[in-house]
Amino acid sequence: MSRRIDAKTAAARLREAQSILILTHRRPDGDTVGSAAALCRGLNRMGKQAFVFPNEDLTPRLGFLLEGLLAAPDFVPDRICAVDIADISLLPDSAGGFAGRVDLCLDHHPSNVGYARELALEEHAAAAGEVVWAVLQALEVVPDLPMWEALYIAVSTDTGCFKFSNTTPLAHRIAAGAIEAGVDFHRYNHIFFEAKSKNRFLIEKTMFDKMIFSADGRIACSWLDRPWLDSIGATDDDLDNLATLTMALEGVDCGIILTQNKKDLACKASVRTHKPADASRICRGFGGGGHPRAAGCTLSGPPEEAAKRLMTAAAAELALC
Amino acid sequence: MSRRIDAKTAAARLREAQSILILTHRRPDGDTVGSAAALCRGLNRMGKQAFVFPNEDLTPRLGFLLEGLLAAPDFVPDRICAVDIADISLLPDSAGGFAGRVDLCLDHHPSNVGYARELALEEHAAAAGEVVWAVLQALEVVPDLPMWEALYIAVSTDTGCFKFSNTTPLAHRIAAGAIEAGVDFHRYNHIFFEAKSKNRFLIEKTMFDKMIFSADGRIACSWLDRPWLDSIGATDDDLDNLATLTMALEGVDCGIILTQNKKDLACKASVRTHKPADASRICRGFGGGGHPRAAGCTLSGPPEEAAKRLMTAAAAELALC
Repeated sequence: MSRRIDAKTAAARLREAQSILILTHRRPDGDTVGSAAALCRGLNRMGKQAFVFPNEDLTPRLGFLLEGLLAAPDFVPDRICAVDIADISLLPDSAGGFAGRVDLCLDHHPSNVGYARELALEEHAAAAGEVVWAVLQALEVVPDLPMWEALYIAVSTDTGCFKFSNTTPLAHRIAAGAIEAGVDFHRYNHIFFEAKSKNRFLIEKTMFDKMIFSADGRIACSWLDRPWLDSIGATDDDLDNLATLTMALEGVDCGIILTQNKKDLACKASVRTHKPADASRICRGFGGGGHPRAAGCTLSGPPEEAAKRLMTAAAAELALC
Repeated sequence: MSRRIDAKTAAARLREAQSILILTHRRPDGDTVGSAAALCRGLNRMGKQAFVFPNEDLTPRLGFLLEGLLAAPDFVPDRICAVDIADISLLPDSAGGFAGRVDLCLDHHPSNVGYARELALEEHAAAAGEVVWAVLQALEVVPDLPMWEALYIAVSTDTGCFKFSNTTPLAHRIAAGAIEAGVDFHRYNHIFFEAKSKNRFLIEKTMFDKMIFSADGRIACSWLDRPWLDSIGATDDDLDNLATLTMALEGVDCGIILTQNKKDLACKASVRTHKPADASRICRGFGGGGHPRAAGCTLSGPPEEAAKRLMTAAAAELALC
């Protein structure tokens, strides 16, 4: 298990190091990439050699944040730091070799398994970006514009643009600072929360067409088959945060969306709940985890059957509430 | 024309008064109602008699904010204060008698025509709620939970939950304060930004089905006929902020949605633009106004013809950019 430390101690550890490699998680989102970019730039500003390990799943929508920050293959760091990575199994395939070698993890997932030597975990933070922000404060780094951009993207994407229940006062205050610093937040809000590609429209429509309900309409579940997703050329970005849409439907307390993985056709499930139903409790039964309102897990077998198993678990969770 | 004053002077004027009547605008939104509620409660906390004039257009979704705050018919105030009302023509019909008698207006619309005796206008504020917040600060009123709720609803609804380009650092800081004070912000986010009634689903679907495009897809326009809206029992809430949805479509720089009024079947147009196109310039040509990114106007005639006239004006605006 990790030794638990606070943001100040994490800052002290980074201050000691001369060269730092930063890791992001599989299927990288705005929080892991934004956190990595902000931390990397902050450490560079202090005169340290800091780089982000290249993540093969990185999409162009987030890739710009890491321009000039990617580690060369021969970079040998003093310290390895993971951001927003709750479990070693969430490392991208190419980073699997770092398992057991992570010195420090900055995270906000209550489900963090404690794989890093030291862990700065803020369970009530909306985003790992808040932990990075606290570390940067402790390092007395005054963010520049690219760092504010990265922090804004970290906290805004993990809160659904300040809409989800996990939104914190600090997430809002980071956003206030970012806007004051001149971040073109509206451009990012458009890209991450508003713009819909033609594929995204098609995917949302199909998802609602196939949706089934149980528990008197309190559970909504739908799935997207890999052959169909491939036939329209859907990207991971097109599939981002689909499950959240189910929470908009009147009467729904638990929404489940399954998408088949490209590699092994296993079903990646995203589960969302309204209070008091606990999404992470539903997912833990299938070896997954996450947050009370948003969690995930992976199930083998055809999507229709995986959907049924998850709906049964969701019904049991709702019965407890 | 109004005498322009700042929030501190507005606070001094309210401090002088013993009884204050607060006015909200026609088709009241979260900002006018939230601002009125927060101001009214703040003045009551100072021991003043303050009430909000009943607005016949008020919907249940916002009505709870004004519980216990509505003025009785025989209330005779020292001062009349309008919040978020840019023009006397935007007073509800029942409040028409106050035209020419408004002592103070707290507003954020650059298009404010200056009908009040004194005007505290913060053109860069995202919401009138920010002006009210500044006035409450100047009055040294520490907000209680219901005031934070009202302020949160004011700033969140006018910024589309902190997504629109008008979002300010202060809007985020007010939200941070509200969350710290214990506001159940997620419940309000769900109600105002997420929950979709069956009618709302149907309306959005119909809007996109009927949508026409011009200027190489840069202008999107649709309309909803009153007979159809009445046939499904659509409420004003169901029609709220429809035009914003057009801004999600790839390539669209100007989105126009027309809805026919209940009373006279005139077409109420909502116009949204991406930078640099100016929605208020398009609407001013039809006697309307608003903000650069979000404006409105009313046109007579059948929706199809009104749509064409607006699309021509929008094309002229886009040609200028």
